[in-house]
Amino acid sequence: MKICRYNDNRLGLLDGERILDVTAALDALPAYKYPFPRTDQLISNLEMLKGRIAEVAKGASSIAVADAHLLPPVANPGKVVAAPVNYKAHLEESRNDVEINYNRKVIEIQTIGLFLKSTSSIVGATEGVRITFPERRNDHEIELVAVIGRTAKNVSVESALDYVAGYCIGLDMTIRGPEERSLRKSLDTFTVLGPWLVTADEIGDPAGLQMVLTVNGEPRQNANTRDLIINVPNLISWASSFYTLNPGDILMTGTPEGVERVVAGDTIDARIDKIGSMQVKVRAA
Amino acid sequence: MKICRYNDNRLGLLDGERILDVTAALDALPAYKYPFPRTDQLISNLEMLKGRIAEVAKGASSIAVADAHLLPPVANPGKVVAAPVNYKAHLEESRNDVEINYNRKVIEIQTIGLFLKSTSSIVGATEGVRITFPERRNDHEIELVAVIGRTAKNVSVESALDYVAGYCIGLDMTIRGPEERSLRKSLDTFTVLGPWLVTADEIGDPAGLQMVLTVNGEPRQNANTRDLIINVPNLISWASSFYTLNPGDILMTGTPEGVERVVAGDTIDARIDKIGSMQVKVRAA
Repeated sequence: MKICRYNDNRLGLLDGERILDVTAALDALPAYKYPFPRTDQLISNLEMLKGRIAEVAKGASSIAVADAHLLPPVANPGKVVAAPVNYKAHLEESRNDVEINYNRKVIEIQTIGLFLKSTSSIVGATEGVRITFPERRNDHEIELVAVIGRTAKNVSVESALDYVAGYCIGLDMTIRGPEERSLRKSLDTFTVLGPWLVTADEIGDPAGLQMVLTVNGEPRQNANTRDLIINVPNLISWASSFYTLNPGDILMTGTPEGVERVVAGDTIDARIDKIGSMQVKVRAA
Repeated sequence: MKICRYNDNRLGLLDGERILDVTAALDALPAYKYPFPRTDQLISNLEMLKGRIAEVAKGASSIAVADAHLLPPVANPGKVVAAPVNYKAHLEESRNDVEINYNRKVIEIQTIGLFLKSTSSIVGATEGVRITFPERRNDHEIELVAVIGRTAKNVSVESALDYVAGYCIGLDMTIRGPEERSLRKSLDTFTVLGPWLVTADEIGDPAGLQMVLTVNGEPRQNANTRDLIINVPNLISWASSFYTLNPGDILMTGTPEGVERVVAGDTIDARIDKIGSMQVKVRAA
């Protein structure tokens, strides 16, 4: 099942090149007054909602994907966990490029650990990226993103994929510079999630997915998730040894080699096997 | 006004050593279905709620502070922004103590920037701290915390304090080690906020507040916010140049010298002028 959010918070089910309007399935979710649950309600109720979505989809109205304003597939994530330098060739390019490493030693992921991005940086594919600091180098980083589906604390590697609700494409946008990653990667619009959530059953093993990113049609990144230094189940197990992962939490699994600058006016095309593709415009802030 | 959250999500108004139950004031807040607003509803509606809180307080039932289970004063913060090494004497102790710096150069805040902590690490004073990794050094860090009250993007230093809803005490708990701060400081229970929110009008200028932390009665940290390297209005202005600060976002302003280890069984007492004090137990995970 490919599920998207679009236009004025409508819920959509992908059907080829069209989106079926299944917003009525959300009627099953309760209303809350302050304080709100700290988990994403779509994701934490996804198993229950799947049947309703399929039911509502029968005879639903639809629009073309190209006509939809795509929102991030997760509306209320609690945190965005991200994996730094998690492909060997990207570690090497980071060590060789002073514009990336700023004369600082680039430390392996096994040592430097995971980092956080702000949830306020999340946008969908259609909103796109805005460049706050045009005088600095602003880079694209395509990543496979896992969306946590169940509360996970100290989970084993073997069971880790059972905690994934689904996957989407992520752009971990980055300004280069001396600051810690959790600042440089948390600017408004610097976490693009989309185009939709593909439920875990459609992906199966998240290793072996080819991902390709082009800018204005020019090839930039082209790699495969089989080359992750720490793979998806190990990332989930490791993260859950530090903190609780909650339904809706976002896990960005790391970017491969080929990171490069984008500027206002560029269009990024990002695609990953079994998920699809999204076109993301880069604009001035 | 000192406002707390306690027991089963009750809203309280401090009255000396007692808490008046003003939960009924929350009736003014609307119910929401998915997706929820990305701002904390208590904080974003605080100006409107103040009058209702005062009204409801008349003749409200009360309990002793000592009998209340204190929850974090902000239930749904979008992010926790934190300032590293923001007191000169703490920068020096960090550079002189290999158990703190792990043989890594400790870089000034002006260069390394701000970092993020996970919202899933937030607890109130009564829940207290749990030690996930007893074999590592787990440190206390007392901090003055500003809670953002209004959406802030690119705000000036001069106007920055207008964006603060109030203040509380924060414990930025930390494991020492080689990982980036956003991981080491994001473990479950590693962000203690409390004991209550003191509205900004009661604090006035947040410079000049003495803060004292003891462990089992033994003095550890004793410093004054006038010694912040980057003070509160400058932190807010600076943070807002990178990303939007939303109502309910938490700004931890940095810890002074005297950070040290705690272990399960310890009791931390943390107090800041004009706010009050909180006693926080440290437990095994």
